[in-house]
Amino acid sequence: MTEHAYPTSLGASTPETISLFGHDLAEDLMGSVGFGELAFWLLARRRPTKGEVRVFEAVLVALADHGFTPTAIAARMTWLSAPDSLQGAIASGLLGGGSRFLGVTEDCGRFLADVLAEHAEDRPADDAPDGAWDELALAAVRAQREAGRFVPGLGHPVHKDRDPRTPRLFAIAQEEGLLGPHLRLFAAIGRVHEQVLGRRLPLNGAGVCGAALADLDLPPALLRGVALLARTAGLLGQIAEEQVHPLARDIYLHVDRASTYLDAESEG
Amino acid sequence: MTEHAYPTSLGASTPETISLFGHDLAEDLMGSVGFGELAFWLLARRRPTKGEVRVFEAVLVALADHGFTPTAIAARMTWLSAPDSLQGAIASGLLGGGSRFLGVTEDCGRFLADVLAEHAEDRPADDAPDGAWDELALAAVRAQREAGRFVPGLGHPVHKDRDPRTPRLFAIAQEEGLLGPHLRLFAAIGRVHEQVLGRRLPLNGAGVCGAALADLDLPPALLRGVALLARTAGLLGQIAEEQVHPLARDIYLHVDRASTYLDAESEG
Amino acid sequence: MTEHAYPTSLGASTPETISLFGHDLAEDLMGSVGFGELAFWLLARRRPTKGEVRVFEAVLVALADHGFTPTAIAARMTWLSAPDSLQGAIASGLLGGGSRFLGVTEDCGRFLADVLAEHAEDRPADDAPDGAWDELALAAVRAQREAGRFVPGLGHPVHKDRDPRTPRLFAIAQEEGLLGPHLRLFAAIGRVHEQVLGRRLPLNGAGVCGAALADLDLPPALLRGVALLARTAGLLGQIAEEQVHPLARDIYLHVDRASTYLDAESEG
Amino acid sequence: MTEHAYPTSLGASTPETISLFGHDLAEDLMGSVGFGELAFWLLARRRPTKGEVRVFEAVLVALADHGFTPTAIAARMTWLSAPDSLQGAIASGLLGGGSRFLGVTEDCGRFLADVLAEHAEDRPADDAPDGAWDELALAAVRAQREAGRFVPGLGHPVHKDRDPRTPRLFAIAQEEGLLGPHLRLFAAIGRVHEQVLGRRLPLNGAGVCGAALADLDLPPALLRGVALLARTAGLLGQIAEEQVHPLARDIYLHVDRASTYLDAESEG
Repeated sequence: MTEHAYPTSLGASTPETISLFGHDLAEDLMGSVGFGELAFWLLARRRPTKGEVRVFEAVLVALADHGFTPTAIAARMTWLSAPDSLQGAIASGLLGGGSRFLGVTEDCGRFLADVLAEHAEDRPADDAPDGAWDELALAAVRAQREAGRFVPGLGHPVHKDRDPRTPRLFAIAQEEGLLGPHLRLFAAIGRVHEQVLGRRLPLNGAGVCGAALADLDLPPALLRGVALLARTAGLLGQIAEEQVHPLARDIYLHVDRASTYLDAESEG
Repeated sequence: MTEHAYPTSLGASTPETISLFGHDLAEDLMGSVGFGELAFWLLARRRPTKGEVRVFEAVLVALADHGFTPTAIAARMTWLSAPDSLQGAIASGLLGGGSRFLGVTEDCGRFLADVLAEHAEDRPADDAPDGAWDELALAAVRAQREAGRFVPGLGHPVHKDRDPRTPRLFAIAQEEGLLGPHLRLFAAIGRVHEQVLGRRLPLNGAGVCGAALADLDLPPALLRGVALLARTAGLLGQIAEEQVHPLARDIYLHVDRASTYLDAESEG
Repeated sequence: MTEHAYPTSLGASTPETISLFGHDLAEDLMGSVGFGELAFWLLARRRPTKGEVRVFEAVLVALADHGFTPTAIAARMTWLSAPDSLQGAIASGLLGGGSRFLGVTEDCGRFLADVLAEHAEDRPADDAPDGAWDELALAAVRAQREAGRFVPGLGHPVHKDRDPRTPRLFAIAQEEGLLGPHLRLFAAIGRVHEQVLGRRLPLNGAGVCGAALADLDLPPALLRGVALLARTAGLLGQIAEEQVHPLARDIYLHVDRASTYLDAESEG
Repeated sequence: MTEHAYPTSLGASTPETISLFGHDLAEDLMGSVGFGELAFWLLARRRPTKGEVRVFEAVLVALADHGFTPTAIAARMTWLSAPDSLQGAIASGLLGGGSRFLGVTEDCGRFLADVLAEHAEDRPADDAPDGAWDELALAAVRAQREAGRFVPGLGHPVHKDRDPRTPRLFAIAQEEGLLGPHLRLFAAIGRVHEQVLGRRLPLNGAGVCGAALADLDLPPALLRGVALLARTAGLLGQIAEEQVHPLARDIYLHVDRASTYLDAESEG
């Protein structure tokens, strides 16, 4: 008899077997379950369908790498300083996965989920036509504007007219029969926001990813985690590239050489 | 003309398109390329075959979660302290991915690659029968023993006779026609080491993963990265579970309550 | 002429000299400026007085180590897994410095600063007697209660009657002539909160540290940073102890051995 | 009777008191012990003398900030991405504290300690004149050269003739009577290395810090920790400056805009 017990559904071992979620890791999972599928299973604590895996992996592919983002630069700088610790470089990059650069996915999923929860009684039925969502979308955009808050998932610094990931993810979700209320509300926001905000903004890729993940019933508190998983692969790609085409030292020298003296006491 | 140029094959954007490795992210990759496939591509800087993806994903599945490892405990502790920062909890867990717990995959792949490189002239041909590798394996185990070093990938604290992941990964690699020199040398080490070490140890799962990844031509300096990617999914699973079945506080209280006073000055 | 310029008051070098804040690092700072003094200077961008240094260092000493906290356990776990990377173990522990365990210092300083800013017109004069602060304290506690929020800095799980750090830090600030409006408002909250909350709670050590730092004019957004600096020393102490009295493996084995199987699908 | 016990000399609490190393934190340490003194105590597990504190703090001051290093850039990038998580920005910067940029202090201290340990029988007596160390220094430099290894602590990319921190730290150690065998051997290396290497290199600041810390009897495995503690203060200074003079976004935009396409498949 032990005083403590720590119940878990995750990895467990006996001398002969290893299990995960009660399945035999070697015989039932290795070679049969894809990595995206397993990642979904770990996050949602249930095995996904094939269609769910396709949407989920499309999101991971969409979020994996965005080139020279601040997180990519941080990871390369850390690798330059401490090439003996790959884990440190990856962790350093992931730590930028906060409110600003990787947070839109989570913010958008959460915002849509909150609107749907507030309107659980009066929201369109699942088989309602698309236009039926416009009224709710209009109310949601108005409420944000009145509260002085941005609508998450609207606008992009580069893709000013149209983010190419957005129509593609809608199409994939449609193909898999997974166009749920979060994505449909998000699409409606894309149609109606101009009436409130006075200008047309694109639905961005990070936002549509959040909507699609929320339609897969992943918990809002973990949507940022999907972005982090995707970004781990992207950061490994950055370090793999740094190993064959080093840039970090050039960036560092550029910054160091362009430094000038600022008198702290004269600060406004 | 710009003074600086930072060439990259990774993510790039124009107002209309996003590309990755020169492919259109939305049209060519999302929905068509799996996440494991993309991760391989990012690490190896070349697109893998279907068979390579299956072996690679089997490795990721094998390494994703091993239950209450120190890294899982670290991630749960960090989440308990700072639940507002999921990226911090994941990074905290990944930072344990160093020499001891996640390092065997890299160490084993590197060890096998080094032995093969040293014997580039006199190693068995690719179509040689399995037994042809035993001599080289014997020499490699002897050299390690004489240098007072362990053979990476041999032995496991729990799976004392046989690690179930090992035969499974060999079988998957065989099915995909990817049983290359690293795996074959590793198998030979499994057959011959007892002659040198005087006792039979199992080929462990982390080791066979390293051998399989090396046969996929992934750079040795990035093998640890594969373990880190797998573990990111596992750590997200740990936090997903912590959110519905919290344990971290119980672990913390157990440790705190069992603390006793130690006089630092009396240390031996 | 360079296209870019990055002005900074911090470290700069010529072949002959190194400077920091415009001072000669070797001749003017090394051996003359204490580490706490330099840390204050770096955070506040102005050199502190002797009295300010004493209060600041008292705070750092108060926050450095609290024994087997979750952050200490995380750091020890990470060290166990990756003993080759001390920076990873320290970073792992610091990442718990978020909203819950290390955040009270920042929350309390910010709360007091906000109350003072809102009442800039009608708050007691600097030379008012202590009791003059009670009315403002009462209003602040009532406002928090009405908003359904806790008053930061009140209550402690162990020091239920009195946190020994609190009177000591008040006394040190008094001795140095640095008992400013934040500390005086905090003391008043200690006197009056029972009238609103219906029970007496101690002013805790993390809270009084936040009040004292706010009275030193450190920016609220950096108060958590003071806790992180203090904790870096504490975590180094944890790892120094782990090297001579290893415990992390015992903690890990305790958790691993007490793990039991939980069926994920049966979750409520 | 409890099954587990975790002995520790560090923080412990009762409802009335908090203790650290068996001392009353509030009454005996706060206001009486400086932060540098406490940090030394935590690392060495013994209370330092006043002279030891002065040398130790001079080292911390010397290592705190070196301007726009890769670690500073990483911390600023992470802060730009995730301004809600100061701990993430600091951790991100510390993770660069590995073999290359912050490692010289540890490498040099360890190198000197190893040479002294190998020559425990035939090294100069403590009161020997300076010149008595030259022979040992010559042997040590020769051995490194023959092994194809650098002598840690020799040479600096900017301070090509003389690192101003080096004579200053020697002078401070001398003033405090703490010029021990590590510093004296290091000084001798400075005098004799030209005979072996054929050119004169300066003893660098990171190296002399390692020598001075080794003379304070700090364990070699923790010397890197001293650099990490110093750098925590420096990184807080970088973030404090970023808050009032933001640069990270300019650096990011510079890199992003100067990116050009590289064909991965054409890599040599």
